[in-house]
Amino acid sequence: MSKVFLVGAGPGDPELLTVKAYRLLQQADVILHDGLVSPEVLELAPKDAVVINVGKRCGSRRVTQEDIHALMVAFVSSGQTIVRLKGGDPMLFGRAAEEIDALAEAHVDYEVVPGVTAALAAAAQVGISLTDRRSCSHVVFTTGHQCAGKERPDWGGIVRPDTTVAIYMPGSDYQALACSLTLAGLAAETPCLLISQIGSPGQRVHLSTLNRVAELPRLSAPALFLAGSAVGRRRSGLNHAETAACLG
Amino acid sequence: MSKVFLVGAGPGDPELLTVKAYRLLQQADVILHDGLVSPEVLELAPKDAVVINVGKRCGSRRVTQEDIHALMVAFVSSGQTIVRLKGGDPMLFGRAAEEIDALAEAHVDYEVVPGVTAALAAAAQVGISLTDRRSCSHVVFTTGHQCAGKERPDWGGIVRPDTTVAIYMPGSDYQALACSLTLAGLAAETPCLLISQIGSPGQRVHLSTLNRVAELPRLSAPALFLAGSAVGRRRSGLNHAETAACLG
Repeated sequence: MSKVFLVGAGPGDPELLTVKAYRLLQQADVILHDGLVSPEVLELAPKDAVVINVGKRCGSRRVTQEDIHALMVAFVSSGQTIVRLKGGDPMLFGRAAEEIDALAEAHVDYEVVPGVTAALAAAAQVGISLTDRRSCSHVVFTTGHQCAGKERPDWGGIVRPDTTVAIYMPGSDYQALACSLTLAGLAAETPCLLISQIGSPGQRVHLSTLNRVAELPRLSAPALFLAGSAVGRRRSGLNHAETAACLG
Repeated sequence: MSKVFLVGAGPGDPELLTVKAYRLLQQADVILHDGLVSPEVLELAPKDAVVINVGKRCGSRRVTQEDIHALMVAFVSSGQTIVRLKGGDPMLFGRAAEEIDALAEAHVDYEVVPGVTAALAAAAQVGISLTDRRSCSHVVFTTGHQCAGKERPDWGGIVRPDTTVAIYMPGSDYQALACSLTLAGLAAETPCLLISQIGSPGQRVHLSTLNRVAELPRLSAPALFLAGSAVGRRRSGLNHAETAACLG
């Protein structure tokens, strides 16, 4: 009855785990986790659980995707309950498709437990609804993650004035991101927001517009970039206002 | 210290509430909930809590948006803890922008608690990663919800072959949805999936392609429509295979 659970760890705050994820973490024999899962979440693991950081970095070969597949299959074969823990939700930018393929090929039983994804956690933190029937009806989740040798993201068409864009793994070249977004059709004055360490004491939030992002300080991962008219409609004070520099 | 909490109820299974939402529901004095929040989630409310269904239906005037604003402000003024409970996540297709505006104008303190949104819960149930670095890097969340007098959704540009499209509130005219998606640029053979009552015992899942959706039975709300190459890559057996008719 051994099984691999692909579990969303949410944005970092253990209170934003699902009840099911919280319970599974407390029962796990083995936890294979991404690099950006928060220490507070990992503290829920039993003291005798095997906890392995299988986080990869762009270009790094420390733990390959194939290693992760082999680890999941090896541990589950020994009859243990494996939690494959991914930041946010497993089915968004988490290579879950490849891991599901590997588990299916090895005839390993698995179950996916969804989580709170970063864009929704960020929206909650800063009081921005990603949709607003008065102005924007669509949301695009995309990534700025580019390993060496890959070209820039092509967002032609998929970003429109009535769309909110959430960019996961925006990297540190915000000017290049803004450039790609304006080339894809967004106005230079489009409001945007950069947030890191969502919901943690170290959270940082910076508001800007696409034509002024070069002025923003570089924020450490995990970070998220939001752009669109919805960002400009923000009504609330920032929850961590002390760290917010409002530009533009 | 009274406050309004805009809380995501997730897809329906109480285990997919966040730990924070679970706790707040058990502590609430007043719960104002949407029509599609599951009975299992509402059962978490204290026996003496005031629980009001403020669900609206397309075109219906039973409870207006303004009524909801007035109720939130009225209850919070009496010093109570209010949970404004929305299906899925509050910041996606939930009119949270209008409610936040109303609360800010009334100088009412509020906090948003994110939730598991339907598209991610559906992805977990059917084993489909919404992104796959081998084929699709973007996800669009949009809505098919059209009240009387509104024209069809315009998805020109925002749907591309390398994009997964999640349509919330798809309505019952699947043929019209598929038509809008093909007009916007998706191939007629694009794999798609219709799912309702996600994760509940009554879950229904139907696989098809855009040019064959007219053959699908009408599913009751809450439902979600997914389209894109990611749907065609599905490896797992459906969790509720007994209800799945695989077409196309």
